[in-house]
Amino acid sequence: MTQIYDKVALIGLGLIAGSIGYAAKRAGVVGQISGYARSGDTRAAALELGFVDTVADSPADAVRDADLVILCVPVGAMAQVARQIAPALKPGATVSDVGSVKQAVVDAVLPHLPENVEFVPAHPMAGTEHSGPHAGFAELFENRWCLITPLPQNDPAAVARLEDFWRALGSQIETMDVVHHDLVVAVTSHAPHLIAYTMVGVADDMERVSQTEVVNLSAAGFRDFTRIAASDPTMWRDVFLNNRAATLEILGRFTEELFALQRAIRKGDGDKLFDYFTHTRAVRKSIIDAGQDTDAPDFGRSGAKE
Amino acid sequence: MTQIYDKVALIGLGLIAGSIGYAAKRAGVVGQISGYARSGDTRAAALELGFVDTVADSPADAVRDADLVILCVPVGAMAQVARQIAPALKPGATVSDVGSVKQAVVDAVLPHLPENVEFVPAHPMAGTEHSGPHAGFAELFENRWCLITPLPQNDPAAVARLEDFWRALGSQIETMDVVHHDLVVAVTSHAPHLIAYTMVGVADDMERVSQTEVVNLSAAGFRDFTRIAASDPTMWRDVFLNNRAATLEILGRFTEELFALQRAIRKGDGDKLFDYFTHTRAVRKSIIDAGQDTDAPDFGRSGAKE
Repeated sequence: MTQIYDKVALIGLGLIAGSIGYAAKRAGVVGQISGYARSGDTRAAALELGFVDTVADSPADAVRDADLVILCVPVGAMAQVARQIAPALKPGATVSDVGSVKQAVVDAVLPHLPENVEFVPAHPMAGTEHSGPHAGFAELFENRWCLITPLPQNDPAAVARLEDFWRALGSQIETMDVVHHDLVVAVTSHAPHLIAYTMVGVADDMERVSQTEVVNLSAAGFRDFTRIAASDPTMWRDVFLNNRAATLEILGRFTEELFALQRAIRKGDGDKLFDYFTHTRAVRKSIIDAGQDTDAPDFGRSGAKE
Repeated sequence: MTQIYDKVALIGLGLIAGSIGYAAKRAGVVGQISGYARSGDTRAAALELGFVDTVADSPADAVRDADLVILCVPVGAMAQVARQIAPALKPGATVSDVGSVKQAVVDAVLPHLPENVEFVPAHPMAGTEHSGPHAGFAELFENRWCLITPLPQNDPAAVARLEDFWRALGSQIETMDVVHHDLVVAVTSHAPHLIAYTMVGVADDMERVSQTEVVNLSAAGFRDFTRIAASDPTMWRDVFLNNRAATLEILGRFTEELFALQRAIRKGDGDKLFDYFTHTRAVRKSIIDAGQDTDAPDFGRSGAKE
């Protein structure tokens, strides 16, 4: 593939940055990749793993001469990083990010950047429950969606170039405005995560059921929740603090529906339960038809039987 | 393996009965297997698939001469089936079941059975989101738990023989009393299912987010919920109606915790969120260490990337 950016800088070197590095190198769309992470161990790991070509001792040194800078740090760290890199940014460079919320990132980053760079927020909807530089892999973005939320003032050419980059990494692209983004991800990601965290917390906190029982009998449904409830705590703390309004709105809707179903159970209204469960079954079929999940029983889990 | 029962009768010929049939034949622990299902199509399918040797036109005909009768029908149908088979049961036979709740099954079945048979309730904790005779497979019970909830009046020899049978099918055995069983499964299975159904229902019912967006972006967490929310509606209606008290208790606890986390989000209490998420991460580690789930990212999903 032809080169899209000469130099890309990755600030933060965890799961997402690692996967970007591997995928961009595999696609041959970047000249060189520099990286920065706060921890020296992480920098050393990234260099050794090879998903960056160089590491720098400061965010500013990493972004010097970069045509694309991607902020891959938790949302809570975005403002500080933006301040640190601002003086060293190349005029005309594109700055982007991979944050799971967009309004809060725009509010944190935009005020610090000079006017001669393009800030184009983005959110690759991909990840696993693992984190850190060793968790990345080149295929992470394949057939996953990357949501790009351009700002009104963006140069359309800079936006199109960033879209080309993400497409080269295997992503499908969807563009939407910042506010709609935050609502959509509250439904498909943030509320499910908080609910999973809660259910796992409840099970772990029951006095009359032992932890051994919970663990041994988890295959009956509970273990599906534990995967996303094992996600990176720092990242998720920041997500919830930074997408407060939309998350609380969805959780309010969720509680309302849950109460209605609890009431149906209490009253013995089997028809209501049956209709509800029949309807939700259809949603899964849509997801499988769209190629966004596997139809194999138990997600095709293979390692769980040993 | 040596034969454990001469003749086994399976009443209801869906996912669980099919898997019992295949696994018992593979293990060589039964002489012959007869089956009954209400639907003629299901009976024909079971016979053609070969997980039963014969099918009968009535439950009574199926259980005649059987040493073990396993009721594999939804919990709501147990009472009627028990009434139908009672006159045809062989003296000394063991009757068991695979229902997901136990107190309600005991209440439904026991009054109808003659005194010269042993009713030993059981609950294999295994299943997939698929249902019907074509969904069964011999490996379903491997390394999964089968909960046996003997009644005080049971002959220990009959209980031990049933345990041997389930072990031969690949299960691990845990025995507990009926009441404790219903609480444990409310935590590990019933509450998670209701919560998953609810979250899927909410996402599908949002006016400002399109179904296409929900489906396309489901990989960010939501799709993990949809697997168990696609489970058989009839079975789950019966589960909730028949394990009402324990399910409502757990859901009450769940709502309480969810409200506490919502409050932490509203107040911006990042420390509380971080601590909670760190703690739940440890629960998943226990489940993986116990061999009850895979550590592969995304459950090792394979078919989802095409």
